[in-house]
Amino acid sequence: MTALVFLDPDFPAGRVADAATAQLSVLDQGVTRGDGIFESALYTDGIVRKIDAHLARLRVSASTCDLLVPHEEAWRAAIATAVAAFDAATPAEEAVVKLVATRGTEGTGHGTSWVMVSPAPELGRRQRQSGISVIFLDRGYDSRVAERAPWLLMGAKTLSYAVNMAALRHAKKLGADDVIFTSSDGIVLEGPTSTVLIAHRDGDTKRLITPTLETGILPGTTQGAIFSAAREAGWELGYGPLTPENLLDAEGVWLVSSVRLLTPVNSIDGTAIARDGQLHAELTAMVDAIQ
Amino acid sequence: MTALVFLDPDFPAGRVADAATAQLSVLDQGVTRGDGIFESALYTDGIVRKIDAHLARLRVSASTCDLLVPHEEAWRAAIATAVAAFDAATPAEEAVVKLVATRGTEGTGHGTSWVMVSPAPELGRRQRQSGISVIFLDRGYDSRVAERAPWLLMGAKTLSYAVNMAALRHAKKLGADDVIFTSSDGIVLEGPTSTVLIAHRDGDTKRLITPTLETGILPGTTQGAIFSAAREAGWELGYGPLTPENLLDAEGVWLVSSVRLLTPVNSIDGTAIARDGQLHAELTAMVDAIQ
Repeated sequence: MTALVFLDPDFPAGRVADAATAQLSVLDQGVTRGDGIFESALYTDGIVRKIDAHLARLRVSASTCDLLVPHEEAWRAAIATAVAAFDAATPAEEAVVKLVATRGTEGTGHGTSWVMVSPAPELGRRQRQSGISVIFLDRGYDSRVAERAPWLLMGAKTLSYAVNMAALRHAKKLGADDVIFTSSDGIVLEGPTSTVLIAHRDGDTKRLITPTLETGILPGTTQGAIFSAAREAGWELGYGPLTPENLLDAEGVWLVSSVRLLTPVNSIDGTAIARDGQLHAELTAMVDAIQ
Repeated sequence: MTALVFLDPDFPAGRVADAATAQLSVLDQGVTRGDGIFESALYTDGIVRKIDAHLARLRVSASTCDLLVPHEEAWRAAIATAVAAFDAATPAEEAVVKLVATRGTEGTGHGTSWVMVSPAPELGRRQRQSGISVIFLDRGYDSRVAERAPWLLMGAKTLSYAVNMAALRHAKKLGADDVIFTSSDGIVLEGPTSTVLIAHRDGDTKRLITPTLETGILPGTTQGAIFSAAREAGWELGYGPLTPENLLDAEGVWLVSSVRLLTPVNSIDGTAIARDGQLHAELTAMVDAIQ
């Protein structure tokens, strides 16, 4: 079901392991402190999509966390081994390739790194079609925190995701599917596992807007790929700040991520969001073409 | 070196395992999402100190995180088994008893829980004598965030400690030993792994003050025990809000935690902190008497 490959200097192509048995020390700081980083990429049609962007972001996360991680070549080799093992065992139309690097067991001086490949969750695939209901939730931070407090690790994709998961549980208790975080000063940030995208149409002009990275959000690899494609297709591009009102006034709002891809937002806090079918179709075509 | 016991319905006294070998799934949400909770207690003179307070706080953390954890009896049994195994293998004057409960592997519907006992770090014991230099760091949250945003899990001791560890690394880069977090609106919060305590003397009156829990900080079990002892000894007790200036003006500032106990603060941001020897001696006696 899950293919697992550890990065290991003794195994240049990665060390294949059995994900169904215990493989990790309880003393690993990845679990005792949530002290590590990760990436989730989509594997489909024999390709791990946006692998360069994921490896680049992993490198930024590592740098932000003062974490030594293996070189790109070791990641690429382990990914190749993992997807081959996955294909041999459980071929699936879509799979998630997860890269994880922790600070390792305290005192050992070296981290633990691995690649896992599992079938993509059904729910995310369904939501691309059905769309989702979301709620705004306060992330507690103001929109200028990232520049003044680098120790908060804003913009790094760490394993410390307890708050992100709690926000999703909170949304589900209220009958919603997902969350868009806002800053304490009322600026739109990101979803717990996604980037926010909004679109406007003004005559022949199509505009795509995403929150500015200065708010401390994670730079979305899928948002980046969509923006590149949209620019080539003649769209205007914009970077927030965005307010909740900007989302309610848009011709389309989406949550985008590497695995769920482009998920249209049907409503926010119970208010219906416009859904321009043509804009959605154009963006979907761009997402489907991402390599 | 580390004694390890898993809580397991099939083993009423806990299931002893080898901490030196892999015991955890890479799919456990404790590591993939930092989604779990923990407690650290001190084991010394054959007693796990403040065990009731730790189990009570674990229960609160579990409730805040919607996490099902084993019953207290199972924890107590596993703790007894773990300290016995530790004593048999590596007797130490002071040891850390760590309780961990994660959400387990996604889809299995049950969590993973274990108890670890390891020798207490030398550094913390030295710092009780030497004192520490600390810096203030902005935690990014304002002091009223806890009441308006329960999904931020303020007051729960989760495994998502990446920011706490990053703050400590930041302090060390600046040549300091530790951190006291402040809110974005300038209120003193807590250390990354400790509670703040300050003392004042006014003639015969001795006052002990700690930041108010309304700021969203973790309720300190050691602070609680010291407050009980100080009340009996006739001290006045106070609960913040405290400002950085209040700390600089105090007759003593301490970081307290279950394992490091009472650690005097020598300086904050390079400014020397007063250290009333008699107050320190009285508080140390109270801490030493904690059961």
